[in-house]
Amino acid sequence: MTSRDRSIHRRANDHYRWEGVEELPYKEDDRALFKSITRQVLFSDPQMHGELRYFEVAPGGFSTLERHEHMHAVLILRGRGHCLVGSEVRPIETRDLVTVPPMTWHQFRATQGEPLGFLCMVNAARDKPQLPSAEELAKLRADAKIAAFLRNQPK
Amino acid sequence: MTSRDRSIHRRANDHYRWEGVEELPYKEDDRALFKSITRQVLFSDPQMHGELRYFEVAPGGFSTLERHEHMHAVLILRGRGHCLVGSEVRPIETRDLVTVPPMTWHQFRATQGEPLGFLCMVNAARDKPQLPSAEELAKLRADAKIAAFLRNQPK
Repeated sequence: MTSRDRSIHRRANDHYRWEGVEELPYKEDDRALFKSITRQVLFSDPQMHGELRYFEVAPGGFSTLERHEHMHAVLILRGRGHCLVGSEVRPIETRDLVTVPPMTWHQFRATQGEPLGFLCMVNAARDKPQLPSAEELAKLRADAKIAAFLRNQPK
Repeated sequence: MTSRDRSIHRRANDHYRWEGVEELPYKEDDRALFKSITRQVLFSDPQMHGELRYFEVAPGGFSTLERHEHMHAVLILRGRGHCLVGSEVRPIETRDLVTVPPMTWHQFRATQGEPLGFLCMVNAARDKPQLPSAEELAKLRADAKIAAFLRNQPK
């Protein structure tokens, strides 16, 4: 393929790695707010007002526990797991749609045994995520359902 | 599920129909610029600057042949087929990414035997698609590769 061709058509391999797309591994995190997740930006262009990213969480891993003003529009592309959105803990599987409203704590966790991959559409112009303080984490854990989810033992 | 729950989490059935999402069948088209395609708007919200739609083309069907100022960011979710983007005709399969630049004629065609389903991200604020005039169609068909694609016989 020429570079011009690739700009209109890019393929993925069997491991959900797209050609011409950089895979960004997350740095390790001391506070264990995320684990074993990578990111590929599939579509980002000055003429588009949204971006489409693909996140993949290894078995037993999880996305960052965070909140922000911008919304997330998520489609589960492969695998299964659980998600936290606000005070809701939900089992999720391939093709489920998850909407994360503004300023809502959220996290995606892969089940054991298979990776969890999801698409996430966001506004191109958006605020930075906020991480929970120790107090906010304690408040979340006061809910037994959320505490179990954060221990990777969703009920 | 309560309506509040469904607003954050919606599931699909095995036929790629999402709960709480209306399926819009296309009207029939005299000029055969599209055939056997349905649309589901998966994410559309005043706070999001992009929309995510799912289109499904029945075996042998095709999306509208059109062009417009706004871009399309497409991810093939199921099946295979061919697409036309400008003067390029490409075989496409599940997980391929296709970028449609501004004012570029484009169409997606399903192969025989299985449906072609694809996600399409667009700007929420966008211009209306333009359909080709008879002259523009003739100009497209002057390219043997494009003519074969439009006859559903891609080379």
